[in-house]
Amino acid sequence: MSNTRRALVVILDGLGDRPIAALGGKTPLEFARTPTLDRIAREGVTGLMDPLAPGVRVGTDVGHLALFGYNPMRVYWGRGPIEAAGVGIALRAGDVAFRANFATLNDAGVVVDRRAGRIREGTEELAAALDKMRLSDGTEVVFRAATEHRAVLVLRGERLSPLVTDSDPGPLHEGERPRPIRARVAGSSAAERTAAAATEFSIRAHHILKEHPVNRRRIERGLPPANYVLLRGAGIKRPMRSLAERFNIQGACIAGESTIVGIARMTGFDVVKKPTFTANLDTDVEGKAAAAKEALNNHHLVVVHYKGTDIASHDGLVDQKVAYIERVDRALAPLFEAAKKDGFYIAITSDHSTPCQLREHSADPVPVALFGPDVLTDDVECFGERWCMRGGLGRITANAFLLTVLDYIGATYRFGS
Amino acid sequence: MSNTRRALVVILDGLGDRPIAALGGKTPLEFARTPTLDRIAREGVTGLMDPLAPGVRVGTDVGHLALFGYNPMRVYWGRGPIEAAGVGIALRAGDVAFRANFATLNDAGVVVDRRAGRIREGTEELAAALDKMRLSDGTEVVFRAATEHRAVLVLRGERLSPLVTDSDPGPLHEGERPRPIRARVAGSSAAERTAAAATEFSIRAHHILKEHPVNRRRIERGLPPANYVLLRGAGIKRPMRSLAERFNIQGACIAGESTIVGIARMTGFDVVKKPTFTANLDTDVEGKAAAAKEALNNHHLVVVHYKGTDIASHDGLVDQKVAYIERVDRALAPLFEAAKKDGFYIAITSDHSTPCQLREHSADPVPVALFGPDVLTDDVECFGERWCMRGGLGRITANAFLLTVLDYIGATYRFGS
Repeated sequence: MSNTRRALVVILDGLGDRPIAALGGKTPLEFARTPTLDRIAREGVTGLMDPLAPGVRVGTDVGHLALFGYNPMRVYWGRGPIEAAGVGIALRAGDVAFRANFATLNDAGVVVDRRAGRIREGTEELAAALDKMRLSDGTEVVFRAATEHRAVLVLRGERLSPLVTDSDPGPLHEGERPRPIRARVAGSSAAERTAAAATEFSIRAHHILKEHPVNRRRIERGLPPANYVLLRGAGIKRPMRSLAERFNIQGACIAGESTIVGIARMTGFDVVKKPTFTANLDTDVEGKAAAAKEALNNHHLVVVHYKGTDIASHDGLVDQKVAYIERVDRALAPLFEAAKKDGFYIAITSDHSTPCQLREHSADPVPVALFGPDVLTDDVECFGERWCMRGGLGRITANAFLLTVLDYIGATYRFGS
Repeated sequence: MSNTRRALVVILDGLGDRPIAALGGKTPLEFARTPTLDRIAREGVTGLMDPLAPGVRVGTDVGHLALFGYNPMRVYWGRGPIEAAGVGIALRAGDVAFRANFATLNDAGVVVDRRAGRIREGTEELAAALDKMRLSDGTEVVFRAATEHRAVLVLRGERLSPLVTDSDPGPLHEGERPRPIRARVAGSSAAERTAAAATEFSIRAHHILKEHPVNRRRIERGLPPANYVLLRGAGIKRPMRSLAERFNIQGACIAGESTIVGIARMTGFDVVKKPTFTANLDTDVEGKAAAAKEALNNHHLVVVHYKGTDIASHDGLVDQKVAYIERVDRALAPLFEAAKKDGFYIAITSDHSTPCQLREHSADPVPVALFGPDVLTDDVECFGERWCMRGGLGRITANAFLLTVLDYIGATYRFGS
């Protein structure tokens, strides 16, 4: 690597929040004791960041595509292809990829648990029992387990279309039947064919899964069986030039969530995974920080992703969000010291806000901070949604924030001569 | 309405201004006593808003299209179609609509008053005398009176084009003759045909109007006769999906000005009109506020439009602008109390700045504020151009401001999953 400047980008998923009465009107981030984040803000520059634009509410996938420097309007077509990249499936032209959940159906055909009790064990075996299924119209099935209850289905065949609806009824509709998978557009024989193939897969998967030894054991142990596969987010792969190639840098990503891993792989980043790096509150926060530090030895840009903030927010767990932020803050302390000593940059950011009271993503901008050599500092003393309103970066987009970081490490190109 | 969150958007047309020596270097808004607007700013979040982008100066029509969530670059082609919607004309494909003014021509053919003394009475009769005229090339005329001296001309026929110039010489050229209407592009037979049709209409309208009993009575009473129709803003209708449909909300608009009524109708809003709701300084400020409160009972988004600020600015009436702002502020006091009690949002905004000394729109951004449940507040204490420079929303566009309001009432869609 000819360029010696480096940057660490820390993503706290769903970090942004709104005032919470139980916290004295503060947000979880404002309330949390975060001496390291505060020092990064104080000795660096801060601002507010919109994933795409003010008022535009995004999902984790779109938010991360923007953080990784892409225009989601151009490269995004469904979550499925990202999840497929996350589990290492190389999508071919014509493949349609779905995000899948192992779920629990009761005898009446009702979804009683969309996540089969957040099943963690035996999903590889269950997936193997579905993989390579051949459907009646000749379509091939590729099926892989992902994190916990998550999985990926790829339909591979001729004349398939991503324009089909989800069978997943969504978190607000547990206790209902899976939705019928239908063509999203009338008169598209490819979409109708794909809906029929996905439906046939769902039925046959249910028959295979409900008799599977893994599920028999789960029932014996009083656990909800993973006897159904809910599908959503059908999509196709769109052409993307890797960030590494666009900016001639080596990137590394430390993440537990398959979505982030998928995006990192699609964008040409090396992925550092460990079984203890989960996409949950129980992740090895300190281990990820240590892995990030190590990755800085041979990468220009290292992204470390923490999911716990978003998990706590979706479940409305204010105290856990506060505690998780404080734990990440502690884990970042040695990295901050190393950054001061070794002269690398640290950027703190997020993919979107997830207010605990809303339990859903919102369009609120997220606070960001950038610390490192020669950064033009502002007078913001603490890291938080409202403090960063006065930040020197102003209000910028995720693409702009990444470019700013890349510019500090000398990776941008000059437009003009 | 499944969604119970509501928002009231208050538009003070042409609110933004520049420092005025007579006000001790303050702007009219900074100078005015506005306890309610200040509380909205103090207990909410503020910012600066550009209708389209910094430095881009817009008209009332374009500013409002942006405030209603549209990209004027895509949906706007001339003021005529908006005015046509405002008076309830359903434009057909191929129709060319003009904004029209009743004006006073003297015997020498010079425009002595572009607004025929701001005529208010008898315009319906005058319009009826011109409506349904059939021009020599077969083109049909649709003519309707609008607010005061304003009217709408629609040319309906074959191969017409909006690419024609205005006959209105504009406010700086009173005392000159009407301009000849010409094709804006050389070699367009449709534009030449349209220019000829509009010219024939103008001549025949003059002959009809100057002998009309309404004008005979005006002359007897020493009032300038409305004996000519000045044309400007030729345009055609472009496809627009209604805001109601795009965001699955019910919207209502309280306005006196036909432009705003036209845009509200084009965007699928219910329009609440009363004869006392004018587009002038004499409007029923309190009645509009009361109508807005009532509309919140069965609409998610209620827009109330106050034109007086812009009217005073165009006439350079600083004191009247200050007094009008203070009157609107008083009318908003009970709405602010209701918002605190009932939990709806209040947004304060404008379509553009109109500095009194300039007597014209400027590209200065306008101050905005948003108050309501869970809004992340900033430390701005008063509502005004310079106070809002430090606002927590930063500097955003009108589209972004509307989306932010829509996100707080839960009406936005998530892009990505």
